[in-house]
Amino acid sequence: MRRLKAVIMYDGSGFAGYQVQPEKRTVQLEIERVLTKMHKGNITKVVASGRTDAGVHALGQVIHFDTELTFPVERWERALNTQLPDDIRVLNVSEVSPDFHARYGTTGKVYRYKWSLADIQNPFTRNFVVHMPGIKPDVEKMRKAAKLFLGTHDFTSFCSARTEVVDRVRTITRLDLIETELQELHLVIEGDGFLYNMVRIIAGNLWEIGIGRREPAEIERMLNAMDRKQAGKTAPAHGLYLETVSYGK
Amino acid sequence: MRRLKAVIMYDGSGFAGYQVQPEKRTVQLEIERVLTKMHKGNITKVVASGRTDAGVHALGQVIHFDTELTFPVERWERALNTQLPDDIRVLNVSEVSPDFHARYGTTGKVYRYKWSLADIQNPFTRNFVVHMPGIKPDVEKMRKAAKLFLGTHDFTSFCSARTEVVDRVRTITRLDLIETELQELHLVIEGDGFLYNMVRIIAGNLWEIGIGRREPAEIERMLNAMDRKQAGKTAPAHGLYLETVSYGK
Repeated sequence: MRRLKAVIMYDGSGFAGYQVQPEKRTVQLEIERVLTKMHKGNITKVVASGRTDAGVHALGQVIHFDTELTFPVERWERALNTQLPDDIRVLNVSEVSPDFHARYGTTGKVYRYKWSLADIQNPFTRNFVVHMPGIKPDVEKMRKAAKLFLGTHDFTSFCSARTEVVDRVRTITRLDLIETELQELHLVIEGDGFLYNMVRIIAGNLWEIGIGRREPAEIERMLNAMDRKQAGKTAPAHGLYLETVSYGK
Repeated sequence: MRRLKAVIMYDGSGFAGYQVQPEKRTVQLEIERVLTKMHKGNITKVVASGRTDAGVHALGQVIHFDTELTFPVERWERALNTQLPDDIRVLNVSEVSPDFHARYGTTGKVYRYKWSLADIQNPFTRNFVVHMPGIKPDVEKMRKAAKLFLGTHDFTSFCSARTEVVDRVRTITRLDLIETELQELHLVIEGDGFLYNMVRIIAGNLWEIGIGRREPAEIERMLNAMDRKQAGKTAPAHGLYLETVSYGK
């Protein structure tokens, strides 16, 4: 039995999220269907670094699974890609030690959130960028607020009220706002881990600050409140990308 | 009665092409449905610069229609965009003289064709770029062949055998091959007009030359043959974009 790690990319538009749910098309379901077929019907489960919601995209999601198949690791990428639907691609497969764990072993993640500030929505990116016409956010104000998230905090106010995890302390090491040439604004956030909806709630609050609906100083109050109701809206799913997942130091 | 000209953009992925066809979702159908509703049920027809096939995209398709509605031209773009599905966007609406004709008045068009040369297909662009893994085309050879299309020729060999137009003489004024940073190869072609499937057949033949299946000199023979069967394959629809349509000199 070998443990394999795979880096995968997916367009979240056509999925009810990453994780298997009854009667729904999910990323995990599609991958397990292909693996189970390759293992002649023996159900093969995959473990991901974490779930992503319906509509959320991934450029570098990481999964692991165990296999008794003996063909060389170099052939796995192609074997999976020829059978997977074209909204999921396997970028890389490598053999890892049996104690590697895609979920429990993560030491960091990078997410990106994309807004479009163009007057007219681009039909080609309608599922990939959140279109916010008419309002030009004050990016400097957003950067001022972004600094308040850096470091170690209890993020109870910035995760879904449905979060089951008890320890909500996380460390954010980077939070940049980047204005692109294509009239987009990107939020890039890096941390040791993220709670359910955390990036989207941070994005939603930074946006509200950008358009003057809130002040940067409110972030501190929200963090201290440890109550989801004290923070503003969750930003839409389709602007969010899981970019990279790291393991080890 | 005023005649309005509109520049529109659409993601062709979800359409059975531009032109109305029974029981199919088409770009023309969606626009006429909105216009007819705006005209309280009076059927309002639109005329485009030309049809595009199923899967073909447009960045600057041009249409015209006549209206008795009197609200200012600046409000049309928004009025249409709020009612149109989000895979069609109206970029600009202007009032034109009653003798302007979106189809018969065209004096030039620019199309772009996109291939991806990346090893693994990007799931985000799977409907927008034709993925050609494994084969790196000889772009210099393609450029050599491209020159043979420039100027005025009878393009009977390079249009669908189903073409009904009798005069197949067209003038190509530009045919560039551009290698992009994102491992894409773009063909940009400009001419006074294009026959049915003409850009896709030119693209398909240039690709076959690029990968060594044909020689550049064959283009001359194909043009002279005036027989569709003498030229190679039609390239897939989803790599093609109608970029701009010009009127007047």
